[in-house]
Amino acid sequence: MHNHFHSNPDLRPAGERFFVRSEAGEDVPLRRIRLSDTPECFGGGRNPDFFMTDVTGGYGAADAGETVELVRRERPEPGSPTQLAAARAGVVTPEMAYAAARENANLEGFAASLSEPGLERVRDRLMPLLERVEPWTGERVRARVAARQAVIPAAFTHPEVEPTVIGRHFATKVNANVGTSASSSDWREEGRKMQEALARGADTVMDLSTGRCIRETREMILRGSPVPVGTVPLYETLERAGGDPLALSWEIFRDVLEDQARAGVDYMTIHAGLLLPHVELTRSRLTGIVSRGGGMMARWMKAFGRENFLYEHFDEILDIAAHYDLTLSLGDGLRSGSLYDGNDAAQFAELRTLGELNRRAGARDVQVMIEGPGHIPMPGVELNQLNEREWCDDAPFYTLGPLVSDVGAGYDHITAAIGGAMIAGAGTAMLCYVTPKEHLGLPDANDVREGMAAFRIAAHAADIARGVPGAILRDHLMSMARFEFRWPDQFALAVDPARARAFHDETLPGAAAQKAHFCSMCGPKFCPMKLAHELFKD
Amino acid sequence: MHNHFHSNPDLRPAGERFFVRSEAGEDVPLRRIRLSDTPECFGGGRNPDFFMTDVTGGYGAADAGETVELVRRERPEPGSPTQLAAARAGVVTPEMAYAAARENANLEGFAASLSEPGLERVRDRLMPLLERVEPWTGERVRARVAARQAVIPAAFTHPEVEPTVIGRHFATKVNANVGTSASSSDWREEGRKMQEALARGADTVMDLSTGRCIRETREMILRGSPVPVGTVPLYETLERAGGDPLALSWEIFRDVLEDQARAGVDYMTIHAGLLLPHVELTRSRLTGIVSRGGGMMARWMKAFGRENFLYEHFDEILDIAAHYDLTLSLGDGLRSGSLYDGNDAAQFAELRTLGELNRRAGARDVQVMIEGPGHIPMPGVELNQLNEREWCDDAPFYTLGPLVSDVGAGYDHITAAIGGAMIAGAGTAMLCYVTPKEHLGLPDANDVREGMAAFRIAAHAADIARGVPGAILRDHLMSMARFEFRWPDQFALAVDPARARAFHDETLPGAAAQKAHFCSMCGPKFCPMKLAHELFKD
Repeated sequence: MHNHFHSNPDLRPAGERFFVRSEAGEDVPLRRIRLSDTPECFGGGRNPDFFMTDVTGGYGAADAGETVELVRRERPEPGSPTQLAAARAGVVTPEMAYAAARENANLEGFAASLSEPGLERVRDRLMPLLERVEPWTGERVRARVAARQAVIPAAFTHPEVEPTVIGRHFATKVNANVGTSASSSDWREEGRKMQEALARGADTVMDLSTGRCIRETREMILRGSPVPVGTVPLYETLERAGGDPLALSWEIFRDVLEDQARAGVDYMTIHAGLLLPHVELTRSRLTGIVSRGGGMMARWMKAFGRENFLYEHFDEILDIAAHYDLTLSLGDGLRSGSLYDGNDAAQFAELRTLGELNRRAGARDVQVMIEGPGHIPMPGVELNQLNEREWCDDAPFYTLGPLVSDVGAGYDHITAAIGGAMIAGAGTAMLCYVTPKEHLGLPDANDVREGMAAFRIAAHAADIARGVPGAILRDHLMSMARFEFRWPDQFALAVDPARARAFHDETLPGAAAQKAHFCSMCGPKFCPMKLAHELFKD
Repeated sequence: MHNHFHSNPDLRPAGERFFVRSEAGEDVPLRRIRLSDTPECFGGGRNPDFFMTDVTGGYGAADAGETVELVRRERPEPGSPTQLAAARAGVVTPEMAYAAARENANLEGFAASLSEPGLERVRDRLMPLLERVEPWTGERVRARVAARQAVIPAAFTHPEVEPTVIGRHFATKVNANVGTSASSSDWREEGRKMQEALARGADTVMDLSTGRCIRETREMILRGSPVPVGTVPLYETLERAGGDPLALSWEIFRDVLEDQARAGVDYMTIHAGLLLPHVELTRSRLTGIVSRGGGMMARWMKAFGRENFLYEHFDEILDIAAHYDLTLSLGDGLRSGSLYDGNDAAQFAELRTLGELNRRAGARDVQVMIEGPGHIPMPGVELNQLNEREWCDDAPFYTLGPLVSDVGAGYDHITAAIGGAMIAGAGTAMLCYVTPKEHLGLPDANDVREGMAAFRIAAHAADIARGVPGAILRDHLMSMARFEFRWPDQFALAVDPARARAFHDETLPGAAAQKAHFCSMCGPKFCPMKLAHELFKD
């Protein structure tokens, strides 16, 4: 089955699609932003092209309505060495080379272009920042994967996936959740939400469907997604168990795991670290267990007085994961759902168990991410990253927020972006976005857009904090464009170009305003940037 | 002239207006949130009333369309001792008592109510948190004002103002900017924006008008505002100078200062710390000077080769400030407008000068706040607070963001809320909100709403981080309501009740959904909180 997605120019990101060749000879898509010249009144001169990662898989590149065919990459047969096995054997895989090319996007051709005539002013400014920057190579990515500080989620069964690397040494990634619930009516809407998420820069998507047509929705997402796809297999397990948590079983779960891996899911949340003794630790909580998968497993364990079957059968899970190179995202079933419960004994007991499971997976060449919270007061945010690094051997950390207050309903993308920026600045590798509908209802396409914007900002602020090579160049080019009133360049470099343009044009529409040396905020007489230009003219 | 504002039920915050008596015998308005009982299926029992600050001045309290008359408090004559002079003399003013009652809002009656029957469950949870909490008294507020760690901006000429205290030991305050620009057409619209800001919890408003009808706009804001009003007097000075920065003069400025203080402005941004030698430090900047007032003064100094007349005449400014108890907000004309310029020599040179001016003002019993940046990368945010505390003797710090990236155009309320939460967590006393229109155009009423929500979240997260007494109670009550599916209580406790309700009802409308034990995000079968309740039932 091929995807049935159509090109949608409304979801076209800034710039044009551009391909670089990876070390392994593959075409890697980037977005190329061409900046306009500096106006003569500001000294004239050219500005460099700037490149950004392109995760859209070509949606928006073709004409409106055209069916988009994703590139299907050659993938090894199931049973081949995983990325981790290859890395440990010293082999640089095509996926490592591909991911390296992507990580270099912001640096692409940048230093070289600065030596061209007309770029002297930009060169004087930015060249010093590039001197100590070392671009990524396949070999350097391999070393991080071998050290288990990074993962490349790319199942052997998912030819549509364009590989990306997740780890604290690389750019912070953002995951967007999509998926039906019993209260949503049209499962095809989830495809539109995925396209929206990709247009806004989602590095991975998780299909968290729990409603009707779980399999159809997942197949649509898998065949239509150029980014790694994650799932929570317990959801389909519960569906097959007739919706009754007490009817869950290892046998049903194993079949779901196998089916989903065969279908091409790249990473799965596995709630194997929530043990029977941990459940008791949640008794004194204010909001109990707020993870859906964690809640089901706790109910099952408590009812039967038996240990978590995912923990008991973890070796068999590893067998399947190794066979398909399925990346395990070890789930935090006990993440805190309120500030009151943040960083409590239950949460950290599970995190220690995730560390144990991570080591067992490592012994089987299975790639692992560790999931984190949740709701945490600001002073407690960093401790999560510190504990994770110590207890889970620096495996990539993947958090939901954290939300730094419980009262943000309607704006929880902001509550979560605050904690997300802080924890990613401290080393978290991937942030799961939160939308404005969190705690209130199922998000729609516009919520996806708002959530992605908040989290692209949080991730970018963290990249700057962590010194991700080239990340801050975008800010500097933006500020140069701002100081020279190059409005279209500002829109192109903004986190959501269409939104920035619409907001500007709302109060100052028309072609002339695109060149005006002011905006409606201060008006022409009070623009400080205009004044600043006059300062050193004499 | 009285205000001509009308009650608008759309702008009514949650709960009902409720008055407590200050130590000085004044009625201090709060919002009282009545929470519903815990459903029997969750064990039953009552929930305590919760009180929040009410800054609306009664807008929204009356029937629709009714004219709202603000309470006019008795104020001392100009020339009386300032709050600082009184504090130093050991006098607890009515304003200090009023502000203390406001700061205690979240604690109001809370501990007492927990001893009532039916509240045992809540008491067991929350009583331990209240044990070490000491409520504010007029005397304790006085001590902080006397130590110059806090200010109460309340001009003798502004009877409408309901006093509030600003300092790092108190709840983080949020300022909302309103005001015309040359590109806006209707100055009365600024009154509507002020009402919007008050409904969303603005602790102060600044009228930054630079367009037509500067005086009419300010008079409308002053007579209609129950919160302290700030201005930047250089704007009207430039207007009186015919719009030409080179025609600025001390004489015109002094007249403006005197006129605005007489009209009732409570605090003013004074750009007296930007000195002639500092201007040269901005030559190598990427975005020069981005403060409007700073830009004008730099232009004037550079053109004439003369020192800043605000610095030269600072003693005369202090005379006027002391006469009206005008609080000076020492402006950061050299705040950074880009990450590239963040924490540079120019910015910090000016901050050192602000420290000197702060000491001079202290010697004259004039209250002072210190303004801060701007655009700062995350790792540099805290340094601003640390330097300010050291160089400016712990005077209240008042920042614009800071924005932690330059590329957030269209979402810069989020970029700024991230830095704002971080710096307020480190001790900044007041945050100036940023709206989604920042860098793009003049905000409208909806932008005010979005900006206020983002900054109320940032301020609240910071209050929790700083341990502001009672602040986290709201989160705990919210999470209790969430865990018990008390939807109307969740809406009432949320940062924007109308938004939370609208988002919830969008996917699950109707009366039954207000009692449903799930929302559309997970649906009935997959709600983890529902499962969690079943866990410990046996």
